[in-house]
Amino acid sequence: MNETIELMLNHRSIRKFTEQPISEEQLHSIIASAQMASSSSHVQAYSVIRVTDLSKRERLAILTSNQRYVADSPVFLVWCADLYRNQVAYSLHDDPNHASLHTAENMIVATVDAALAAQNAALAAESMGMGIVYIGGIRNQIREVTELLELPERVFPIFGMCIGFPDQEVGIKPRLPMEAILHHDKYDISQVSNLLESYDQTMSEYMHERTQGKMRRTWTEDMKNKFAAPSRLHMKAYLEEQGFYLQ
Amino acid sequence: MNETIELMLNHRSIRKFTEQPISEEQLHSIIASAQMASSSSHVQAYSVIRVTDLSKRERLAILTSNQRYVADSPVFLVWCADLYRNQVAYSLHDDPNHASLHTAENMIVATVDAALAAQNAALAAESMGMGIVYIGGIRNQIREVTELLELPERVFPIFGMCIGFPDQEVGIKPRLPMEAILHHDKYDISQVSNLLESYDQTMSEYMHERTQGKMRRTWTEDMKNKFAAPSRLHMKAYLEEQGFYLQ
Repeated sequence: MNETIELMLNHRSIRKFTEQPISEEQLHSIIASAQMASSSSHVQAYSVIRVTDLSKRERLAILTSNQRYVADSPVFLVWCADLYRNQVAYSLHDDPNHASLHTAENMIVATVDAALAAQNAALAAESMGMGIVYIGGIRNQIREVTELLELPERVFPIFGMCIGFPDQEVGIKPRLPMEAILHHDKYDISQVSNLLESYDQTMSEYMHERTQGKMRRTWTEDMKNKFAAPSRLHMKAYLEEQGFYLQ
Repeated sequence: MNETIELMLNHRSIRKFTEQPISEEQLHSIIASAQMASSSSHVQAYSVIRVTDLSKRERLAILTSNQRYVADSPVFLVWCADLYRNQVAYSLHDDPNHASLHTAENMIVATVDAALAAQNAALAAESMGMGIVYIGGIRNQIREVTELLELPERVFPIFGMCIGFPDQEVGIKPRLPMEAILHHDKYDISQVSNLLESYDQTMSEYMHERTQGKMRRTWTEDMKNKFAAPSRLHMKAYLEEQGFYLQ
């Protein structure tokens, strides 16, 4: 096993960080790595907002449902799908109203571009001994975040990312059995239930151990609870307002 | 600079592969690395279809607008956003019709989950000396791909990925200036045009050199051409049919 694969296999989210700062040089390496990820037709349809302003960090911690590490982590980044820059590029040659940026297709392109870049950034940070956590809570009150960071049309924040040096030990959470996510030549639905039962066993034992016997939750129970009520129902209308997924 | 960052900074898409096969052990490392990427609330809402069937590979090459490497690469994977498995998990505890899987929010969750996993897979492959290319063309005729791979409801293919050992030398394409994608505390629109002009210069020189003086295309021209006509307009209706982005 090489260093890079070993790094990935050791990933766990870190939510508590030491005071040790991240240097500008280290941040540069993180963002430079992000930029080298693949991008659909080289459109590079993403941006990242680094938030250092303390009052904005405090506000973001509240807007993400009081996640303290959003305010306290040495670095906090907001990763955005961004077709605004492509619109500006277009406008240098033609009326931007003629540009087809508003499609469902391009929302997927921009979302994927941002995610690939962010994952490179995460690994770059981890390769330097740092820990990270993705903050999906940035979408909890997405209009307020959009306003706070002055995001123009055709830009939306997908997730935040805390980065810093770990100040906690965290176990590695077992993933679904590989056969559940890897299919051969076609999607095989016949084995899904069995594999989930076996995974429930694994997760239940892991949770039991991790909580010193206090908890024995299964994954399928978690999924039941997670999807029992719709979350972030504002997303569809919000994305339309920002000029996404209109056609 | 460490090995992992160096790997990322050397990324370029590879579309021509040697005959050297990828072993089952190597593929296992690639998928295991993918599985360790972060996932929103541990939902793991993605799947990957490995296509080895030769007639399916040929068909996929045609469906992606005749990209030969889709048929010929040692490994071809189709990365899918997948909420079907979460639906099955839900159905073990309650009527799946009560589950809120169909929201815009959950389409973003599943798309991001798939992209993070895929980028880990890409880097795992590259760390073993392989090259990869993402195939967005899988969305060109997405209904046919869905049928060919027998994808159930709540699953859609986002992109393909060819993997193999490189049989070509490819230059590293310059990215946007870092200041264009990295913002501080707020999205700064004031510098975008200037930065794009400077990037146009860079890309024009790069293309000139790469094509031995035959071509001098700028990035903003590419974006003008790329977005002048809408592409993949079937995506919105297709995604609704598959049970995504309904609310």
